[in-house]
Amino acid sequence: MTKRILALPGDGIGPEITRQACRVLEACRDEGLDIDIEEAPVGGAEIDRSGVPLAPETLEKAKSADAILLGAVGGPKWDTMPDISKRPEKGLLALRKELNLFGNLRPALLYPQLVEASSLKPEVVSGLDIMIVRELTGGIYFGQPRGRETREDGTRYGYNTYIYDEHEIRRIGRVAFEMAQKRGKKLCSVDKANVLEVTILWRDIMNELAPEYPDVELSHMYVDNAAMQLVRAPKQFDVIVTGNMFGDILSDAAAMLTGSIGMLPSASLNEHGQGMFEPCHGSAPDIAGQGLANPLATILSVAMMLRYSLNEADMAARIEQAVGAVLDQNLRTADIAYTGTRQVTTEEMGDAVLTAFNAA
Amino acid sequence: MTKRILALPGDGIGPEITRQACRVLEACRDEGLDIDIEEAPVGGAEIDRSGVPLAPETLEKAKSADAILLGAVGGPKWDTMPDISKRPEKGLLALRKELNLFGNLRPALLYPQLVEASSLKPEVVSGLDIMIVRELTGGIYFGQPRGRETREDGTRYGYNTYIYDEHEIRRIGRVAFEMAQKRGKKLCSVDKANVLEVTILWRDIMNELAPEYPDVELSHMYVDNAAMQLVRAPKQFDVIVTGNMFGDILSDAAAMLTGSIGMLPSASLNEHGQGMFEPCHGSAPDIAGQGLANPLATILSVAMMLRYSLNEADMAARIEQAVGAVLDQNLRTADIAYTGTRQVTTEEMGDAVLTAFNAA
Ligand SMILES: [Mg+2]
Ligand SMILES: [Mg+2]
Repeated sequence: MTKRILALPGDGIGPEITRQACRVLEACRDEGLDIDIEEAPVGGAEIDRSGVPLAPETLEKAKSADAILLGAVGGPKWDTMPDISKRPEKGLLALRKELNLFGNLRPALLYPQLVEASSLKPEVVSGLDIMIVRELTGGIYFGQPRGRETREDGTRYGYNTYIYDEHEIRRIGRVAFEMAQKRGKKLCSVDKANVLEVTILWRDIMNELAPEYPDVELSHMYVDNAAMQLVRAPKQFDVIVTGNMFGDILSDAAAMLTGSIGMLPSASLNEHGQGMFEPCHGSAPDIAGQGLANPLATILSVAMMLRYSLNEADMAARIEQAVGAVLDQNLRTADIAYTGTRQVTTEEMGDAVLTAFNAA
Repeated sequence: MTKRILALPGDGIGPEITRQACRVLEACRDEGLDIDIEEAPVGGAEIDRSGVPLAPETLEKAKSADAILLGAVGGPKWDTMPDISKRPEKGLLALRKELNLFGNLRPALLYPQLVEASSLKPEVVSGLDIMIVRELTGGIYFGQPRGRETREDGTRYGYNTYIYDEHEIRRIGRVAFEMAQKRGKKLCSVDKANVLEVTILWRDIMNELAPEYPDVELSHMYVDNAAMQLVRAPKQFDVIVTGNMFGDILSDAAAMLTGSIGMLPSASLNEHGQGMFEPCHGSAPDIAGQGLANPLATILSVAMMLRYSLNEADMAARIEQAVGAVLDQNLRTADIAYTGTRQVTTEEMGDAVLTAFNAA
């Protein structure tokens, strides 16, 4: 049966990087992958068109798609919108929530060809390969009640609610334990259980799950210590599991350890394997439209799509190998270029990946 | 008038590092500083004695002291206590709250003698000098309601409340703007205003304060980006101001950038200049009692005490210069030792600082 892919290019560099990733998807189709690709606006682009970041018809298309490829959303143009519920980022949050994409996979992988790009010493990061499993549809980003109000004496205050129930914790815990089983069999759960009650429950549930995965070594770490350990000795980690907000912070820090966030894909999955795939980097409005953007994270997001939503692990590996091949050819977009490499445009990078993919 | 200092050694390595710091305080007294030093247990040590981490009489002593010197609290012995309200860390939280120590100053300073200790490349961190101003008595660590409960269908859930009012934000904002005025005149406020309402108010208040400090350049950054930027290019920051939880995470990450968290002091101040001073590192129960602990962070906390609570900037500088002198002498405790330096014990390091202090 034909699988349906919905491409949502978004804002800033989103359209140009999504274009290159779609070319790779089209090449997969040429090789026999039975897919249908449709496109729709989201984020700021949709706000400009219809006033909301996610149109109802786009949400419907997303729901019926097998997988979604997202570029990036947001930019200074929409940063000062007074109504937070209509900002570009809300389009993403709504997609995650409506499709129940609770399982966010954020690999932090350092390509050996790019070890110099890291701000860390080579011996600290060479061979780095961490998978952060972040809960994506609960926690404080979605918790109610929330808002800004004024007390009787005129004092303004703001509040949000950090809340998880055991089902939410258990299902992301299972994703993480299973991921650890497929990898190095080490799982570190990150919380703030010495202060926050909600994360005491988090730790309890992880401990309750552990006996079902006797081959996985479970450890716990406070979030402030985890931030330190990622800087000090990141290779101690295999799989990290944590809530939405801590995962947001730690996965971005871990990504930056590689020095090449333009290389890092991500997946957001629900219980049926339906997923949204997107680069870890943002919409970089400052370089949009100049051919400077690195399309590799989005192309590698296509590989994650093939692996996790379309069950095409071989085709996924072929894309990943093609990316490795262009790095071996010393081709670099501006963000990862240095002396001795050849700087190419966004489109030239797409060309090179396609050539390598087709040659494989 | 005699100033009253309360020393709270705490747990793990707390007593041995506090001992060395108190020797430095005593040396200041010998040089004419009019102080009285008293000592009391806190944290796990107090739990073992009386069942609670902070005894009422200790709290009274703390309230009437001009400054408090704290070692460190906590350890695995008390980590599994079912009643979170009686854990060692709660002793600290109670002190901060009862004394209204809302302004936490966390310098991340890289000593030129220790640049090799960092996991980051020397060119990324050499000359690093960041001051993180963290709100310490509000936000989600103190917010109500909070707890763990069970729904009617038997589902367990946990929740905490992230709340700030404009007065809390404004007073920490003023501390940060004033700190920026005394330093590089750059202030970066960290929030998650694209998602969390409470931090939209945070950003609004910082913007409202800015016109009162026209010499300070105010910028804003989302917390996940701040975690990335600290790894990528930490020297872009001068003063960072943020809430309690984000400050907990970012100040620890920033401290670890230096690679020598055993060197970093901190101050927690209220509106009257009364303060608690303590090292950034923890109680390190694994090395307690072995003479391996680095007392310099606690000794430098004494320098912050002299500067911020006792108005003795010259004496503070003399302590800091003594610490620089022992580093120049290549003396190192185990945590910062490497080939070519001379490893000394906790007490020997204290001896060396005292000798340098008295020679100055
Ligand atoms: Mg993020
Ligand atoms: Mg901390």
